[in-house]
Amino acid sequence: MAKKVKDPGLGEASVTSAKRIVNKDGSFNIKHVHRKTGISALYTYLVDISWTHFFCLVFLVYFIINITFATIYVTIGVQYISVEPQGFFIDFVNAFFFSSQTITTLGYGAMAPTSIITGIVSSFQALIGLLSFSFVTGLLYGRFSKPKASIEFSDEIIYRDFKEGKALMFRLMNSKKDVMINPTVKVTLAITEADQAHGYQRNFYQLELERDHITYLPTTWTLVHEITEESPIYKFSEKELKTLNGEFLIMVSYYDEAFNEEVYKLHSYTFEELVMNVAFEKAFYYDEDGFTVLDHHKISNTRKM
Amino acid sequence: MAKKVKDPGLGEASVTSAKRIVNKDGSFNIKHVHRKTGISALYTYLVDISWTHFFCLVFLVYFIINITFATIYVTIGVQYISVEPQGFFIDFVNAFFFSSQTITTLGYGAMAPTSIITGIVSSFQALIGLLSFSFVTGLLYGRFSKPKASIEFSDEIIYRDFKEGKALMFRLMNSKKDVMINPTVKVTLAITEADQAHGYQRNFYQLELERDHITYLPTTWTLVHEITEESPIYKFSEKELKTLNGEFLIMVSYYDEAFNEEVYKLHSYTFEELVMNVAFEKAFYYDEDGFTVLDHHKISNTRKM
Amino acid sequence: MAKKVKDPGLGEASVTSAKRIVNKDGSFNIKHVHRKTGISALYTYLVDISWTHFFCLVFLVYFIINITFATIYVTIGVQYISVEPQGFFIDFVNAFFFSSQTITTLGYGAMAPTSIITGIVSSFQALIGLLSFSFVTGLLYGRFSKPKASIEFSDEIIYRDFKEGKALMFRLMNSKKDVMINPTVKVTLAITEADQAHGYQRNFYQLELERDHITYLPTTWTLVHEITEESPIYKFSEKELKTLNGEFLIMVSYYDEAFNEEVYKLHSYTFEELVMNVAFEKAFYYDEDGFTVLDHHKISNTRKM
Amino acid sequence: MAKKVKDPGLGEASVTSAKRIVNKDGSFNIKHVHRKTGISALYTYLVDISWTHFFCLVFLVYFIINITFATIYVTIGVQYISVEPQGFFIDFVNAFFFSSQTITTLGYGAMAPTSIITGIVSSFQALIGLLSFSFVTGLLYGRFSKPKASIEFSDEIIYRDFKEGKALMFRLMNSKKDVMINPTVKVTLAITEADQAHGYQRNFYQLELERDHITYLPTTWTLVHEITEESPIYKFSEKELKTLNGEFLIMVSYYDEAFNEEVYKLHSYTFEELVMNVAFEKAFYYDEDGFTVLDHHKISNTRKM
Repeated sequence: MAKKVKDPGLGEASVTSAKRIVNKDGSFNIKHVHRKTGISALYTYLVDISWTHFFCLVFLVYFIINITFATIYVTIGVQYISVEPQGFFIDFVNAFFFSSQTITTLGYGAMAPTSIITGIVSSFQALIGLLSFSFVTGLLYGRFSKPKASIEFSDEIIYRDFKEGKALMFRLMNSKKDVMINPTVKVTLAITEADQAHGYQRNFYQLELERDHITYLPTTWTLVHEITEESPIYKFSEKELKTLNGEFLIMVSYYDEAFNEEVYKLHSYTFEELVMNVAFEKAFYYDEDGFTVLDHHKISNTRKM
Repeated sequence: MAKKVKDPGLGEASVTSAKRIVNKDGSFNIKHVHRKTGISALYTYLVDISWTHFFCLVFLVYFIINITFATIYVTIGVQYISVEPQGFFIDFVNAFFFSSQTITTLGYGAMAPTSIITGIVSSFQALIGLLSFSFVTGLLYGRFSKPKASIEFSDEIIYRDFKEGKALMFRLMNSKKDVMINPTVKVTLAITEADQAHGYQRNFYQLELERDHITYLPTTWTLVHEITEESPIYKFSEKELKTLNGEFLIMVSYYDEAFNEEVYKLHSYTFEELVMNVAFEKAFYYDEDGFTVLDHHKISNTRKM
Repeated sequence: MAKKVKDPGLGEASVTSAKRIVNKDGSFNIKHVHRKTGISALYTYLVDISWTHFFCLVFLVYFIINITFATIYVTIGVQYISVEPQGFFIDFVNAFFFSSQTITTLGYGAMAPTSIITGIVSSFQALIGLLSFSFVTGLLYGRFSKPKASIEFSDEIIYRDFKEGKALMFRLMNSKKDVMINPTVKVTLAITEADQAHGYQRNFYQLELERDHITYLPTTWTLVHEITEESPIYKFSEKELKTLNGEFLIMVSYYDEAFNEEVYKLHSYTFEELVMNVAFEKAFYYDEDGFTVLDHHKISNTRKM
Repeated sequence: MAKKVKDPGLGEASVTSAKRIVNKDGSFNIKHVHRKTGISALYTYLVDISWTHFFCLVFLVYFIINITFATIYVTIGVQYISVEPQGFFIDFVNAFFFSSQTITTLGYGAMAPTSIITGIVSSFQALIGLLSFSFVTGLLYGRFSKPKASIEFSDEIIYRDFKEGKALMFRLMNSKKDVMINPTVKVTLAITEADQAHGYQRNFYQLELERDHITYLPTTWTLVHEITEESPIYKFSEKELKTLNGEFLIMVSYYDEAFNEEVYKLHSYTFEELVMNVAFEKAFYYDEDGFTVLDHHKISNTRKM
């Protein structure tokens, strides 16, 4: 008989429409209201976005700051940054260049402040510039030193014949060249079921794995849950499985040699991501020289059984 | 019978007036005398203050340093930084701008050192500037990379009916969107009691919790200590409880996925923060789309029982 | 009888020509195809290369970027960076200097942009410069803060008489002055053997060590595997040993006091690196003052037995 | 009977004159010959020296680099950095200032390169400057982020009456305001004794402690080893103890809340640092307001018994 586990901290009360708790990227699928935000939240945001997004933002902010200060310098009068006034457009462009030369602490000097007010603004702007680039330095290092996404999961979880019965399987891949040591996996199944006493209730079950830890992970690792009588999904038919409102919550931990850190990674599969009667194709092979070759495109490749 | 635990390192000798050992922010409430301080203590201080405080200090220090160097340049004579002397105020302002252009390594060049002494001072000042901004870069990164306050505690600890008896409860909330894994809680009760042999003595008791660890903490977690006969506070009436000189010492540890680190957080409640016969209100709900919504304003919300 | 261990995550299928799984530097010997690369992979690459390589790359990139921008400025026309055109070579050199003065935010100002297009390019270049040096700052810190190669392994693994029988031995050295605490070693033997059912198969055996952990490692530590009847290599003659297709996979972990981190290090010896009937020479001695002296040149020194 | 422990990694062979293995600052007392050094060793060195030493070095290096480049510019000819030659001393001083304005990327522009060779040297110098300040930024952060010396040890280890017998005691203090969690202590005694078979031999014994871990360490903690019949020093008289060639090796580990890290600290006492028949004086007291006051000067204070 399948044994429930106590609420692992995710809450037992549920509704029929309940969305998944853990997103595919491993974050919690929770909306926050009245959350205090601040510079730290900004930092976390800027560390988590993609590189393209990050650089676009840097250029945009650089542009906006210079537009802002250019407006200030034009308002004060470009003669006070040693520029001959020549009409709004040219003045604005010159002020923009003066601003960019100030904020980067470039300071060619062809333009330079010649009044107290432009002196004050440019002193202040140079400080702002240095603080901003200190911030960017921290951000860049923060982005690099954070171990991200070095584990890749197969797109789907599969349900297939295995030994005399059936089994659930999914696959992990070492998506970097990093040395992964002692990877360990824990799978919790959460199913929302109607309960006479409490309305909809989320029940949690620990899934037994054929093997839940290995010593090294240089290529791929297929995790196997045999559906024995002990399994919480033993009682469901293939059809019923596809209609369940539930979620496989997966926690992988390993030691990452490149970062010298123990790394945890969450992942989740819903029953919509369950595919029937397919098997994973091998994702690595030996080439002629005896080298093991890992093909990153094949992590989710399956074939009909 | 309640079982004392040996001194967990906080000292058994006490006095009636003894202040709490652990502050609400988790720091030790200890006064230090003859403590050596240095640049590291300054760093720790600057990492721990608020952002507003931090930026005010940065601007203030920038201002003071420039005032100082401006004074030096005026004393030497502004003609040596290629400025026509025009009276003290204008000279001082120019010297201030020269100083700020030097310390930020802006160096427009409209003003530049023209004597040996101003050459030396400005060389030195540029070095100071670069070291200072290196320091600020380290500080900013230090501030960001330090996991702070991602656990929020309910303002009060409550005492209420529970099952057939009474229970103490307090509540934790994940105050960021970070993924918290394996949160674990340990509660030690410290009570200062008169002891015939040693005068006032602090006694320590480990409080049994209904559950002391969960797997994930996406929203809130209510910790429950049932007041059975084993509990050290079983013998006190509600009235007596409010007059005790004591403290609940709480240690929370969890793995923070955003920082890839095991994080510890101390907290403490005194008996003054004990509220009788109220219950916590739920702090999260499901919206129409099935999303879990966590309301940060409700962490300490209680209702009469 | 030697006891196989289950696949430690390295894959059991093998071929006769199979190359070693772990390189001598501790990295996995795996070829990746279709691997996504990006800035993070670049960062990891730049953290792992040697210092000489690193600085050559920095200078090369600095040179290439300036050549590129010099070309742009020459194309636009050097009169727009306030330089009198004097023929292509001199113009190009001046444009190169202007570029280097801009990207380092030096900005002497003898040359300065005098048109909108050079103004835009130089604004952009100064930003590129600051971002690049932020990147280099992060890289330098990343290189320093990563504990590398503080464990050195003897070049060879030796096979020699020991007590009444034979033993395998290899040696570790603390190659820095860092304090190493609780070093622990685990040795897995992987042998590729023909298997009637599956073709070539890699079998794994845990090797028993006389001692697998110590408290401190200030100098050297010789690891000893006694070849008893339990040993998986007991059945092989000296000659056979040299022809085996296999690999000793070694995992060392210790706490590094200088980095305040638990550090893991992989290493591997193939049977080609097995040397018969030699013994390690002591690598440290006491000098006249009673100091322990560790000679780094002697880590792999052996003498005939 | 005292039970020897196997060599904890420090080597059993010894000589009469053998110096202590662990220094008072927790580093290993080992001389290294033929050790490869490099930029990483330089980094470690610069992280470990005192702040005074560090800043002196920074200023010295800044001075030397500028002297070097000034020499180069003077050799090339100061007319090529737009300075009117005025005799060696003035030229050298101007070249020094030009150098410092270049390396800090200040670039006033009053002096600027006017030839190809000075253009090249100054381009190169600006790059050197930026790399150097990146290095310094990393160093500063490295110095701050390394948890140093937050545990202070009493100067001496004491031997005194305790209960019905004798005991050894030493004391730890939390020398910062940091929250220390779960401090744990392990004491190994190493004694060099004559051995008929092997000459001088170092024997190791684990010392039993009354308590080897506590939960918090806000103030001080006195470690107690009762000298029962099991103790390895039970057999020595007070006089003999003072003449032993040996060392108490102490390893403290704790979780530092300020750095979010598990920290290890080594320390050692020789028998010369053993003081007879004194007791530690309390190092903290309660002030009038009930605050605990910790006096850092009293960590080693003892009184005659």
